[in-house]
Amino acid sequence: MPLSPEQLAEIEDLRANPRPTLRAVSEGMESHLYRAHDVLDHGFIRVIDYMGDDAAICQAARVSYGKGTKSVQNDAGLIRYLMRHWHSTPFEMCEIKLHVKLPVFVARQWIRHRTANVNEYSARYSILDREFYIPEVDQLAAQSVVNNQGRGAALTGAESARVLEILKGDAGRAYDHYEEMIGEVDHNGDEKQGLARELARMNLPANIYTQWYWKVDLHNLFHFLRLRADAHAQYEIRVYADAIARVVADWVPAAYGAFEDYRMGGVNFSGKAMDCVRRMLKGEEVTQETSGMSKGEWREFEGDIG
Amino acid sequence: MPLSPEQLAEIEDLRANPRPTLRAVSEGMESHLYRAHDVLDHGFIRVIDYMGDDAAICQAARVSYGKGTKSVQNDAGLIRYLMRHWHSTPFEMCEIKLHVKLPVFVARQWIRHRTANVNEYSARYSILDREFYIPEVDQLAAQSVVNNQGRGAALTGAESARVLEILKGDAGRAYDHYEEMIGEVDHNGDEKQGLARELARMNLPANIYTQWYWKVDLHNLFHFLRLRADAHAQYEIRVYADAIARVVADWVPAAYGAFEDYRMGGVNFSGKAMDCVRRMLKGEEVTQETSGMSKGEWREFEGDIG
Amino acid sequence: MPLSPEQLAEIEDLRANPRPTLRAVSEGMESHLYRAHDVLDHGFIRVIDYMGDDAAICQAARVSYGKGTKSVQNDAGLIRYLMRHWHSTPFEMCEIKLHVKLPVFVARQWIRHRTANVNEYSARYSILDREFYIPEVDQLAAQSVVNNQGRGAALTGAESARVLEILKGDAGRAYDHYEEMIGEVDHNGDEKQGLARELARMNLPANIYTQWYWKVDLHNLFHFLRLRADAHAQYEIRVYADAIARVVADWVPAAYGAFEDYRMGGVNFSGKAMDCVRRMLKGEEVTQETSGMSKGEWREFEGDIG
Amino acid sequence: MPLSPEQLAEIEDLRANPRPTLRAVSEGMESHLYRAHDVLDHGFIRVIDYMGDDAAICQAARVSYGKGTKSVQNDAGLIRYLMRHWHSTPFEMCEIKLHVKLPVFVARQWIRHRTANVNEYSARYSILDREFYIPEVDQLAAQSVVNNQGRGAALTGAESARVLEILKGDAGRAYDHYEEMIGEVDHNGDEKQGLARELARMNLPANIYTQWYWKVDLHNLFHFLRLRADAHAQYEIRVYADAIARVVADWVPAAYGAFEDYRMGGVNFSGKAMDCVRRMLKGEEVTQETSGMSKGEWREFEGDIG
Repeated sequence: MPLSPEQLAEIEDLRANPRPTLRAVSEGMESHLYRAHDVLDHGFIRVIDYMGDDAAICQAARVSYGKGTKSVQNDAGLIRYLMRHWHSTPFEMCEIKLHVKLPVFVARQWIRHRTANVNEYSARYSILDREFYIPEVDQLAAQSVVNNQGRGAALTGAESARVLEILKGDAGRAYDHYEEMIGEVDHNGDEKQGLARELARMNLPANIYTQWYWKVDLHNLFHFLRLRADAHAQYEIRVYADAIARVVADWVPAAYGAFEDYRMGGVNFSGKAMDCVRRMLKGEEVTQETSGMSKGEWREFEGDIG
Repeated sequence: MPLSPEQLAEIEDLRANPRPTLRAVSEGMESHLYRAHDVLDHGFIRVIDYMGDDAAICQAARVSYGKGTKSVQNDAGLIRYLMRHWHSTPFEMCEIKLHVKLPVFVARQWIRHRTANVNEYSARYSILDREFYIPEVDQLAAQSVVNNQGRGAALTGAESARVLEILKGDAGRAYDHYEEMIGEVDHNGDEKQGLARELARMNLPANIYTQWYWKVDLHNLFHFLRLRADAHAQYEIRVYADAIARVVADWVPAAYGAFEDYRMGGVNFSGKAMDCVRRMLKGEEVTQETSGMSKGEWREFEGDIG
Repeated sequence: MPLSPEQLAEIEDLRANPRPTLRAVSEGMESHLYRAHDVLDHGFIRVIDYMGDDAAICQAARVSYGKGTKSVQNDAGLIRYLMRHWHSTPFEMCEIKLHVKLPVFVARQWIRHRTANVNEYSARYSILDREFYIPEVDQLAAQSVVNNQGRGAALTGAESARVLEILKGDAGRAYDHYEEMIGEVDHNGDEKQGLARELARMNLPANIYTQWYWKVDLHNLFHFLRLRADAHAQYEIRVYADAIARVVADWVPAAYGAFEDYRMGGVNFSGKAMDCVRRMLKGEEVTQETSGMSKGEWREFEGDIG
Repeated sequence: MPLSPEQLAEIEDLRANPRPTLRAVSEGMESHLYRAHDVLDHGFIRVIDYMGDDAAICQAARVSYGKGTKSVQNDAGLIRYLMRHWHSTPFEMCEIKLHVKLPVFVARQWIRHRTANVNEYSARYSILDREFYIPEVDQLAAQSVVNNQGRGAALTGAESARVLEILKGDAGRAYDHYEEMIGEVDHNGDEKQGLARELARMNLPANIYTQWYWKVDLHNLFHFLRLRADAHAQYEIRVYADAIARVVADWVPAAYGAFEDYRMGGVNFSGKAMDCVRRMLKGEEVTQETSGMSKGEWREFEGDIG
């Protein structure tokens, strides 16, 4: 359980005091505010603040396109139009601030999305907690033999047990040594001014948990979700993306619906692939050899057209 | 007067319906929401939305620095510390969305601040209004003879009158021709499908008004204000920066106070200048010749030390 | 002709002095360096500097993916793989610096691409030249009746003549008045310290030419080209994108080839559209009514599948 | 020694083939190209490519400020002027691409500089090498008692020995287990398809080395150097910043000289601090109590004025 009773009490306290505002309010998002959604064994995401709603997207679009947008009869239709034609700036008018607790190796992937604001817990200033990500047994899979970056078959029971033994043992020992070095407790039990925290932290493995505040606009959040909620993303970041996606669906339902249809459920065909589609629709039988595509592309193309 | 009675009624309508929220609320900012602050002859700024307050800055800092920030006794002190040591990320946790109406030549300077989100009124889609910036007489100054980009002495009455005659005459004629080309009214008074708007707009001068939604985080807004509320900025953008600064002072009073002291009222000394300050404090008489500075630098230095 | 004999001589001078370097060299790009490619009536683009080539993209990818990229047999294949799977960072490893001369209304669209570096000629410091974009007669089209932002039928001869008369007349008069106000020549022919340049420029219309240095990485340049070399882009910016595209094709031929196939010639299908494609490939006759798409989407879909 | 004989041979090979180019060439930088500068025990930085030189900065400034920059007599003077007045865009016209090998905990600080392009070695695709940062004994310092994020007194000999024993032991064991899990060698010495690399990596501590290509413009590089070559930066990133600074000094000597004087050697005084400086220069004795500053600010101020 990632949150302590004190933390849960603090959250309920924050939720007990609604205040009047003149700003745009998303009822769906208000129900999420501050509450933690558990992810992995010790992680969570929770919404700290947000700006805008579906109507704010349309309002910004109407500033840009003026009378040009009046012909679209409703907000959902306008939002679909904007998404279809890659009009990204209206989606940038919404913003979300999340508090995320996550393993360091997930944080390292996440931070590659540069168009966001981050305040991370600093292990130079402060001492990290003894919390490590230990995968569920059904997540312990072998290296894929067809995909250089994916997972293949599940490990056997004996193999899994050995992996868990290693991960738990090394994490525990590393943390014991971290504590010993920083001298909260030395190995004789005496107190002392130990090794600087900024040095001691280097002993901690990549499955230790960190946390941060992460603030991003909706356009860039959709880009993050498209890459990280994708089937090719690593499971451990995908579960965070999935949790965020569920929150976004409640926040801006029309925008999320358009995103799901055009981006998550959509397909990008190359000029060569479109040529094949057109030939096939005319009844021609197209094979990899006559497609002009490489074997890898053709395999992906076949997957797309079902 | 930049706003019509309809627009004022719409604003009062928006302000008449407070809704409950669990988010951070800034009372100072709520009083500004939607209301237009007049700038120049037809321009304005108005706050459409905001995220965060002084407490949100501290909350983000405390996530980063953990116990390290507990020693600072209060929020204002912590915010001053963050500003002094260039900790920018906590200020990025606040966001503001403004609706701005401004002359095109001001918009061209403004847009150079890249870390912001913008939706501008599109003259490809829509027809611009007949509104031009015509300076007040006391703003009509000659080119500075000491500063390549500044203003010098005021023009004489006859010169001013001639400038205003030109600006008004050319703007009016350009707009008449714009209307004629797009064919809302042709020059015989008949209706027709005229020149495409995306072409006709090229006839309009740089003092025509445009408008946009502009969304930016507080750190980048402070950067904008430091450059644009500065005495060296062009008057026509400075008045926008000043109007925004007054709103920010009500939104995040502690952060704005620190910004005023460290950035607006602050001075940057080079290593050479610091060397001179130290020598002067020891009683040495330092001149430009013995300072190691160029004449230009020395003149600026003398201005700084008063 | 956008360049003076002095400028042409300067370019040939710059091209006369090759120097040895150990950096990656693109022969195709060396042939373009400094030379101006004319665009519109007074504009141009020219390459001032570049970094990297096709091999540099692959080299960066191989740092990231290590042995994982060795299975791809050649650079062109690897580059196609990277483009197909939206691996953007290797393309960011190439950079180009252009000198561009362009009308202000084109510059205003262009600058919306924020991930680039820009140094623009400043009309606060310096005096703009008397050069205005005047369209060719065959570019003078009416506002489209089906597309709020497009052009429709060509104007009649009389209408075109009237538009050209307006554009030329207003531009000339505006520039005469600009000169008069800044006092290079006053209206009696006497010299004087005239109106500050930062004020006088507001009288100039949006078809006056400006110029800038623009530096951008290849990934962001491709994004620019996808939007601005597109058939829906305004003609006056499209011709710049087209000129740049021809240079890029000589600089990084493999990357440009992949970009052309996957981005320029590619199509994005939504989940709904893919569902229709799959049904149609199975022989089902799908209509707008049974497609789940709106009329607008269906029309676009029919265009895509030819 | 971070480089193998094969790698050194490859570098000399790359350096053996100068090719002609028409681009700006920096002799100082050509001498660095490809060569590794050792940092820490297994790390390095090396220049892979660069764009521009001191003259390119001035050229870009002269595009912007036109005749306004002609009054400055030479490039070095112009560059000092640009640096003093925070004209950042001309410095953005230079670009550098580095290959860096660095411990993961250093990489985590480094990546917070968002305005840069990065391709990092992927531990999802590939297997990390057995290389860990183990500090020199004289770098093993206790947590500072006055600064929450700094280092204080050196550890005693016995304490240092214990820390090194822990760091080496845990790193070695973690890597043995990493290898065992990915199954290059299982614990019986048999070959097998082991745990996916993307999972196994989570066992590795933060002092393992990673590597990346990092590309950044000169303005943002200066910002990085100001923060990371500063005395308050952690030693392990400061040595990278110092190594890069030495390369930059050879690449753009005038820009680097201005940066050193105005940024590295410079001081930022608040309005309150400037008020004190002015009073002190007039002969007044100012104390913390009469300064209007907090104790912490006053202590820093006293340090600045020496």
